[in-house]
Amino acid sequence: MLLKKCLLAFVLTLSVTTIFAQTKTAVQSPDKNLLMNFWLDNDGRPMYELLYKNKTVILPSAMGFGLKQTMSNEALPSLQKNMQLTASSQSASDTKWNPVWGDVKEIRDQHNQLIVSLTQKGEKAIQFNIIFKVFNDGLGFRYVFPQQKELNHFIVSAEKTEFHLAGDHKAFWIPGDYDSNEFSPNVSKLSEVDGEDPKYAASIFAHQFFNKNAVQTPLMLKSDDGLYINIHEAALVNYPAMNLVIDKADFTLTSALVPDALGNMAYLQAPAKTPWRTIIVSDKATDILASHTILNLNDPSVIKDPSWIKPTKYIGVWWEMHVGKASWDSASGKHGATTANVKRYIDFAAKHKFDGVLVEGWNVGWEDWFGQYKENVFDFVTPYGDFDVKGLHKYAASKNVKLIMHHETSASVTNYERQMDTAYRFMKANGYDAVKTGYVGHIIPRGEHHDGQWMVNHYLRVAKKTADYKIMLDAHEPVRPTGLSRTYPNWLACEAARGMEFNAWSEGNKPRHDVILPFTRFMGGPMDYTPGIFQLELNYWDKNKKETIHTTLAKQLALYVTICSPLQMAADLPEIYEKKLDAFQFIKDVAVDWDDSKYLEAEPGEYITVARKAKKSNNWFVGSITNEQARTTTVDLDFLDAGKKYQAIIYADAPDADFEKNPAAYVISKQTVNSKTVLNLKLAPGGGTAISIMPIK
Amino acid sequence: MLLKKCLLAFVLTLSVTTIFAQTKTAVQSPDKNLLMNFWLDNDGRPMYELLYKNKTVILPSAMGFGLKQTMSNEALPSLQKNMQLTASSQSASDTKWNPVWGDVKEIRDQHNQLIVSLTQKGEKAIQFNIIFKVFNDGLGFRYVFPQQKELNHFIVSAEKTEFHLAGDHKAFWIPGDYDSNEFSPNVSKLSEVDGEDPKYAASIFAHQFFNKNAVQTPLMLKSDDGLYINIHEAALVNYPAMNLVIDKADFTLTSALVPDALGNMAYLQAPAKTPWRTIIVSDKATDILASHTILNLNDPSVIKDPSWIKPTKYIGVWWEMHVGKASWDSASGKHGATTANVKRYIDFAAKHKFDGVLVEGWNVGWEDWFGQYKENVFDFVTPYGDFDVKGLHKYAASKNVKLIMHHETSASVTNYERQMDTAYRFMKANGYDAVKTGYVGHIIPRGEHHDGQWMVNHYLRVAKKTADYKIMLDAHEPVRPTGLSRTYPNWLACEAARGMEFNAWSEGNKPRHDVILPFTRFMGGPMDYTPGIFQLELNYWDKNKKETIHTTLAKQLALYVTICSPLQMAADLPEIYEKKLDAFQFIKDVAVDWDDSKYLEAEPGEYITVARKAKKSNNWFVGSITNEQARTTTVDLDFLDAGKKYQAIIYADAPDADFEKNPAAYVISKQTVNSKTVLNLKLAPGGGTAISIMPIK
Repeated sequence: MLLKKCLLAFVLTLSVTTIFAQTKTAVQSPDKNLLMNFWLDNDGRPMYELLYKNKTVILPSAMGFGLKQTMSNEALPSLQKNMQLTASSQSASDTKWNPVWGDVKEIRDQHNQLIVSLTQKGEKAIQFNIIFKVFNDGLGFRYVFPQQKELNHFIVSAEKTEFHLAGDHKAFWIPGDYDSNEFSPNVSKLSEVDGEDPKYAASIFAHQFFNKNAVQTPLMLKSDDGLYINIHEAALVNYPAMNLVIDKADFTLTSALVPDALGNMAYLQAPAKTPWRTIIVSDKATDILASHTILNLNDPSVIKDPSWIKPTKYIGVWWEMHVGKASWDSASGKHGATTANVKRYIDFAAKHKFDGVLVEGWNVGWEDWFGQYKENVFDFVTPYGDFDVKGLHKYAASKNVKLIMHHETSASVTNYERQMDTAYRFMKANGYDAVKTGYVGHIIPRGEHHDGQWMVNHYLRVAKKTADYKIMLDAHEPVRPTGLSRTYPNWLACEAARGMEFNAWSEGNKPRHDVILPFTRFMGGPMDYTPGIFQLELNYWDKNKKETIHTTLAKQLALYVTICSPLQMAADLPEIYEKKLDAFQFIKDVAVDWDDSKYLEAEPGEYITVARKAKKSNNWFVGSITNEQARTTTVDLDFLDAGKKYQAIIYADAPDADFEKNPAAYVISKQTVNSKTVLNLKLAPGGGTAISIMPIK
Repeated sequence: MLLKKCLLAFVLTLSVTTIFAQTKTAVQSPDKNLLMNFWLDNDGRPMYELLYKNKTVILPSAMGFGLKQTMSNEALPSLQKNMQLTASSQSASDTKWNPVWGDVKEIRDQHNQLIVSLTQKGEKAIQFNIIFKVFNDGLGFRYVFPQQKELNHFIVSAEKTEFHLAGDHKAFWIPGDYDSNEFSPNVSKLSEVDGEDPKYAASIFAHQFFNKNAVQTPLMLKSDDGLYINIHEAALVNYPAMNLVIDKADFTLTSALVPDALGNMAYLQAPAKTPWRTIIVSDKATDILASHTILNLNDPSVIKDPSWIKPTKYIGVWWEMHVGKASWDSASGKHGATTANVKRYIDFAAKHKFDGVLVEGWNVGWEDWFGQYKENVFDFVTPYGDFDVKGLHKYAASKNVKLIMHHETSASVTNYERQMDTAYRFMKANGYDAVKTGYVGHIIPRGEHHDGQWMVNHYLRVAKKTADYKIMLDAHEPVRPTGLSRTYPNWLACEAARGMEFNAWSEGNKPRHDVILPFTRFMGGPMDYTPGIFQLELNYWDKNKKETIHTTLAKQLALYVTICSPLQMAADLPEIYEKKLDAFQFIKDVAVDWDDSKYLEAEPGEYITVARKAKKSNNWFVGSITNEQARTTTVDLDFLDAGKKYQAIIYADAPDADFEKNPAAYVISKQTVNSKTVLNLKLAPGGGTAISIMPIK
């Protein structure tokens, strides 16, 4: 599956000669723009710093751990001091690989690597290594505990990785939390962060704040001197997620892991390794969006034959529940997942060539599922009486449409783990090869958190088991992604952020939401964001409903391009689309998998313009979106094949469009374009432009 | 399976007339010896008291709960006051039923019942009922939360059931704990209990004390005025186990439930019910042993056709690991579960007509299994390379011997629950139809306890799932049993107490241990105690080993009768038995299921003499055991059929036998007996006598 080409032979420099403390070991990025130094300070504490074009990204920052013995629960000697460097080695690597799906068809992995081996001074010395990889666009480092005499099983009681920033940067952040990522992102100076303000937790049932100075990753930062810095992690496996606690006196961010029911962070056994801590940096915001460093830090795919993995565009019985037209619960009198209604969606999907139809509320349990710490809610195989599993399987198959299964676990994970095999067998027997999982509520095992080690292991267990069954996975309310979809490409998407649904029943998402997410949540991987809402004023569904979508209709279309995901929903209802089939044409045309992506312009929280070339096609799609400010911009189509003619269909905000006053006003125009064309775009407040560019044959 | 005969029509007296607080509602036992009064005190608090032959067993004692809302975690109004009685009803019942196995073939369930319905005063009143059943030998009561408007999901934050004793009784107790029951029982006045003395925790890795005044149930008490009182619970389902905290000022014992990882006790949804709280009382100690009240309070068997459930006498590859001759771990160089060694056990079992051979250490994982909070230890299907699953299945089948599976979960219960179906299918495919489970260590889900609600549900889930697979169950390190083997008769036995194994590697079990357990742990159900050790001085196995078994050999034989269990091991090694085949004959002859049992004499902590008649047989077996004191006694064989001749084989301590100085000295004598014979027994210190009495044809 992965075509791996080694462009450069591995260069290995091993230096085991005496190394003095305070001697800095330097590693540059291949293009020399980044410089990372590692050293031990006078106390024997591991330290690093990072510079980009001679500007400081990370001031001298400490690394290390607090560990405990598993059996006695007693502390082990600190790994934050008294360390000595016993070996270090450097190497360079430059390879390419082909993702199963993604924003480009080929990804270059070029980096310089440093491995340092550290050993405690004194008796019963514990060893650990740090691996640094310096890419042109960022740094990744991870801790590795090799197999050793003095350390076998152990508890991580704290990881103390510092990111000492050079100033009070502008931050695009959500509050640090153990359970939820569905907070509305805020934009402020680091010094102004207050993560425990209850306003963030509005409409979020299961969440746990722990420190008002804490924020989550991916954390996007912009320095006064024009650096864009993104801090996250890669390959989160068998370890809890990392929050960052801000020291507002000196802008040091320190890792704060998500604890388990006993207050421990991780249970490890040597050999063991942590996730990579990543710092992506550039003086161009578009470089952040274009970065593949997090994917490069993940392991290659374990799925030998990925031919069954299909990027998917889908509709579903879902938004009608959020707007109140229907209900998940069969006894409600307005059940959405009836055989007749699902057939209607299948018909629509078949007519408009969608791959799949998601159906939520198909199975018994919704009548009493939420918020009660109830362990046995769903069994994942028992449909409501008005949902004909066999009949719908047959009907969908006859129309060449795939039904997408829904497994809401209600966060009763022990129950789900008991049922998984049975549930996946049931799916395959009934023609389903994709599942949307959900984890709404407080986790059972009680005391565990959505983002703790136990749940991190669970999500991956699901990814592996669904892969065993050749099932594609879309996990809602999981831990934030960290590029694991490279390794498990059947794991198409996650939610793990505030999605479209919040617009249906909360204060909603701000217009800037969509120009922040690509710099934050999306750094870890695709999101099932569910764009495509055409009925933007929700009093259409219920005259008492005051909610509106805080975008224009054209922006809803542009999201299919600004969001990169192999799983995209057209979230509105068939009857809504039927009324605007001209605009709907863009959703029908747009791809969900790409040969190439051009990040043309971007500023976090303000605007993004992206062009993408569809996989195995000459069709291009452009998306341009703005925040609450109107905006004019130009798109230079120089990425098109020279000398070739294309027809561009431009889905733009109408001149009087406005996300608040006139969101649904759009104009569609067509024009013949080529690689020399420059298009002028005019985006309404909360608006966007979507463009399809297809060769004229 | 259960032959249910209604001897007496149900008498129902419904009194819904105005009931005043402080008016006592009285219920007597059918034989009028017991009197229970229920009333509400001036604060509207539910109260009860219990008298036996006009002696006070329980002084006025309060009942009630602290509850919380599940969703908000906020306290609900206390159920310990402000209650009013809205209804009460009394009835009488007298039925008989036949257990699948047990100490008698028919059990009479005769009791008078009172149901009181209580409702809070004021708005949003919560209701609950208390059901009292008064038997001739004791009282059982449970709380029931009916379906109601003001209570659906709720958390039990505390159950406050009091047992206000009439004095500073002599108590036979083990410390209150959340995880272990493997403490050496102590005998003291209630006022002298100190459960947190570290001496109790010696040799017990996973345990959690919580209050030095706490003790576990079954709690055996003896009052100065000669009453024997036993407090326990019946039908522990979806609820945590109960400890009792002693108020040493007035000898009130108050229930203290085992909490979960969040400190909550139970998550319930109305309709819901608690286990029965049981108080068995008599002026004869033998009545305590003969009581079937706890079984009567459990539901009838759910297994329609129990023909596949076979009381089992077995040997196994087990004691050789405890004495250090062999190891569970294949890499140790002295692996016990090798194909050759197991064949040796199969041969011995076949020769001596044992039903089964247990094999521990057969599966990969033992090399790193203990005490490290490791989640993925065993997979329950991967044998060590030197254990031939298929070959041994064939070999055992050819010899008409059943292999018994061992599933040590290392208390990683999430892991076991993921593997259970696969593991049971593997068992059935390889001819196993009985499993010994183990839960050694700290529970995963971390923060849960062996005796908490989540684990209580787990043990029952295993009992049900093994029943689905027609597998018999023997659970080690589970919660203490509460008579659930009536409902799930495939659940043959539990450990849940300090078994024989402690003699192999700890300070051991005191001689009085065996004359306490039947009054404590065994009240809840059978134990896999593993008697039959003939090699009583363990330096035989390793000259550095100082441990000895603190009984005589004859007492080891007598245990097969004093212990009532449908699962009994002959725990010593074949080569040991080969040397004493004359004594071994008793183990071969003795039954493990009974038509009748006669509890001839007993005093907790001192002596027990029991005669039992084998199931569907005219063979009787007598066991008489003592504590560290030598003892002479007589056994009147008047239970034999009049006019019939029997041969008695008497396995007695030799005149110079002594558990410390000369434990293995025994004498075997034969004599013809009839119903008029009175046998004189002489028990050595730590000794016993076993007798088989078989009709002369």
